Amino acid sequence: MRQKISESAVRRLSVYLRLLRTLEQEGEELVSSRELARRSGATSAQVRKDFSLFGSFGKRGQGYDVRELTVRLEEIFGLRRRWSVCLVGVGKIGAALLGYGDLSERGFDVVAGFDVSEEKIGSRVHGVPVFALEELERIVRTRQVEIGIIATPPEAAQEAADRLSAAGVSGVLNFAPVEVTVPRDVALRTMDVVLELEALCYLLTSDGRSESKASA
Amino acid sequence: MRQKISESAVRRLSVYLRLLRTLEQEGEELVSSRELARRSGATSAQVRKDFSLFGSFGKRGQGYDVRELTVRLEEIFGLRRRWSVCLVGVGKIGAALLGYGDLSERGFDVVAGFDVSEEKIGSRVHGVPVFALEELERIVRTRQVEIGIIATPPEAAQEAADRLSAAGVSGVLNFAPVEVTVPRDVALRTMDVVLELEALCYLLTSDGRSESKASA
Repeated sequence: MRQKISESAVRRLSVYLRLLRTLEQEGEELVSSRELARRSGATSAQVRKDFSLFGSFGKRGQGYDVRELTVRLEEIFGLRRRWSVCLVGVGKIGAALLGYGDLSERGFDVVAGFDVSEEKIGSRVHGVPVFALEELERIVRTRQVEIGIIATPPEAAQEAADRLSAAGVSGVLNFAPVEVTVPRDVALRTMDVVLELEALCYLLTSDGRSESKASA
Repeated sequence: MRQKISESAVRRLSVYLRLLRTLEQEGEELVSSRELARRSGATSAQVRKDFSLFGSFGKRGQGYDVRELTVRLEEIFGLRRRWSVCLVGVGKIGAALLGYGDLSERGFDVVAGFDVSEEKIGSRVHGVPVFALEELERIVRTRQVEIGIIATPPEAAQEAADRLSAAGVSGVLNFAPVEVTVPRDVALRTMDVVLELEALCYLLTSDGRSESKASA
């Protein structure tokens, strides 16, 4: 049985997962809620509450089993499998996204990039082959791409969202600095530096700082 | 009196604000909750509920006054003033962040970038002067920088967070793909493509898609 959990809880769980993977690499077998709290900016109580949503992982007085908790969180997120991803817009920000994160290590296979620039088409950017935008539908279908990242200029973002949705992706991550809409059966997340700065200003302006920090 | 509102509500309000500014540029004076919902991916009921947190803006049967609502949201976010921002790490992603968004238009003055690369120090990237990392403390103090964006390689991110915090910033936006911690009196937001992709996978794996879409 899955429970609906809030967006901020999803974010915290994702942060815990990143910490757990680091701990696992460091050879740690157990971790306390206190340590997870310290390293994530949450409180120990918040950590315990977040995990309690999914059953009991902790061993009283010993902490959490790092490996077990990692696997459980990966199951919750649907990360015990690989996801096929494409990138629309292989400009500076798109290329930076490809080169910056550990996408492949984290289970995301970026199988194609799409661009309108003749110079980029046919090249590889951080190992990802770049195709002409015209090929989007064909490649999304044949490679069974499930997630499309949009990193186009703002004026091209909605068309990218439309074409990705029509071609059959299940989710869109929009990095273009403009809102896009998608059909109801497509999931959408927006990633925008201005939105994040504004959320930060809200924290700095409001009284709710300590609470909001825990969920950052 | 300010109320604590959830992180996802802050995110939605920020999205509405972006839409309202677009509408204002387009010369619109009134907007319905339905139109805001359509363009933001939320439901009309959610739009009305979000605004009701801050009092009554709507004119029954006419919709919201675009200008009035914009000003009110800017007040809520602390955006009726300008914020002084610096960027630590002017690599590809840092440069892309500077060039991509409309930071200045949205009230954020990026007054300095910091880097360790001799080639970059002394140059301007998208108009922002780049200084040696050693100058961070001096410039944060003299320019009264309030927000630091971290776009360093992961191994340098915590030091950047420590130095920004010690130099007196109030908020940190971390774009490096690693968790950083800050003192309790500093606000922190994390921006990470892997975290966003994982949140998207959660939506795609869970039953809670339509709800979560509305808050994306």
